Amino acid sequence: MTEEGFGSRLAAAIGEHGALCVGIDPHSYLLADWGLPDDASGARDFGLRVVDAAAGRAGVVKPQVAFFERFGSAGYHALEEVLEAARSAGLLVIADVKRGDVGTSVEAYGEAWLTRGSRLEADAMTISAFQGVGSLAGPIRLAAQEGKGLFVLAATSNPEATAIQHSIDRDSGRTVARVIIDDVSRENALIGDPIGPLGVVLGATIDLAGFGIDTTQAPIPAIPVLAPGFGHQGAKVEDARALFGSLADVLLVSESRGILSAGPDELEAAISTRANEVRAALV
Amino acid sequence: MTEEGFGSRLAAAIGEHGALCVGIDPHSYLLADWGLPDDASGARDFGLRVVDAAAGRAGVVKPQVAFFERFGSAGYHALEEVLEAARSAGLLVIADVKRGDVGTSVEAYGEAWLTRGSRLEADAMTISAFQGVGSLAGPIRLAAQEGKGLFVLAATSNPEATAIQHSIDRDSGRTVARVIIDDVSRENALIGDPIGPLGVVLGATIDLAGFGIDTTQAPIPAIPVLAPGFGHQGAKVEDARALFGSLADVLLVSESRGILSAGPDELEAAISTRANEVRAALV
Repeated sequence: MTEEGFGSRLAAAIGEHGALCVGIDPHSYLLADWGLPDDASGARDFGLRVVDAAAGRAGVVKPQVAFFERFGSAGYHALEEVLEAARSAGLLVIADVKRGDVGTSVEAYGEAWLTRGSRLEADAMTISAFQGVGSLAGPIRLAAQEGKGLFVLAATSNPEATAIQHSIDRDSGRTVARVIIDDVSRENALIGDPIGPLGVVLGATIDLAGFGIDTTQAPIPAIPVLAPGFGHQGAKVEDARALFGSLADVLLVSESRGILSAGPDELEAAISTRANEVRAALV
Repeated sequence: MTEEGFGSRLAAAIGEHGALCVGIDPHSYLLADWGLPDDASGARDFGLRVVDAAAGRAGVVKPQVAFFERFGSAGYHALEEVLEAARSAGLLVIADVKRGDVGTSVEAYGEAWLTRGSRLEADAMTISAFQGVGSLAGPIRLAAQEGKGLFVLAATSNPEATAIQHSIDRDSGRTVARVIIDDVSRENALIGDPIGPLGVVLGATIDLAGFGIDTTQAPIPAIPVLAPGFGHQGAKVEDARALFGSLADVLLVSESRGILSAGPDELEAAISTRANEVRAALV
């Protein structure tokens, strides 16, 4: 499994193309700006255009599934075409779905997004551990087995999240965000790949130390980090190593609307420029 | 909005049919037991059969969307047929999706499930506040506007959830579960319906007092509670008033596999029997 594990595939993609992860967010206002209809066909054309532009220029794309789900089954059909095109183009695909549940229900979400041959097959999905990292046993097992990955929300950058993610576990004195990272790290150790198939989502605009998150010791195996918050949200990619420290080894700089607002004609240039900036900053 | 608010519609459905909420969980093993194929058509036939059996016998159904999502767009198409059939049959529908995100992304999930005329239209959806109840502003506004409801996960019954949901907010000393309930209550007060359109998910098998949840004072407006954990998970519906106290006024007893395992031929009888037991226990 080691050779094919998601962590190793991700590290290879970052090695080849740099750390930029390009969002695919067919929001109404972007569809309008791009001259596309605000329906499933518009979302499909938008997604396929981003895939075309990202192929060869970035290693990873991240469709925001909410913007497809709003069109129901037709939106999902559009998404299936976009996922297939992205994977055929050699891009790694993170389905940004933030699913979460327990038992066989969350396992079914894992089946949907992480099973080889599924119509919605991606390389990794984002997931929420509000019911505990232990509740995600089904998708964790599936990820390890299928060479897929998970990015578990840990410390997000929106200010309303603070009360919950900063709260203190009574037994250990750790923050919720830290508990999640530690649990993810333990699951990665059990799986045993050199780079964990389980990553975390950490906002680049937050004070990681304030969450009690240790950025001085490298977790073993390494934990992939998906980091929104760079670019027009305020964090500078030049500061990524200082911000994430030992967590910057397998770091994805997630940017969506800052790039997508370039419009369809300037998209390739926008992706190339930003990918180069990110590569230069993270060398 | 008062007459048409979700809270009032829910209370009316409970008044007419009692508090039983029948799950629609087309799990592989149930599809096999029912003699249905483990694909989108099987999920559709399963869902339509449950809708038929529940109509007139229960007030509320709750499709577990993960079991449809595993079939991709075809599964969503099946789900659309089930949702439409359920709403046409006069059942209230809670889409058990446990979505969560921030900003326009979570707003798009709200659009998908709570907008009148959407292909995935339900009467309410379950949602996760891992990024804070404040992050759910979009769907909260939409719910109030469209006469729809949300059930926010607060204290769930799975043991792995404890570390996170029991954690203590540094500022207020309240548990995460309590913070969520208080935030939901405040949002309901702002909306001003007599029964809030925003409810919470509280497991019936947990010690609510241990979470610092007050069951002696009735929240104003009343908060709908969706409670799994009764039946074969261990909690007795006869104890519901003792367990939930002041939170039992608009309570839904959520049961899925205990009922669905009756099989297609015995399903109507199983729903009638259980609905009567629940009604008798909660009079």
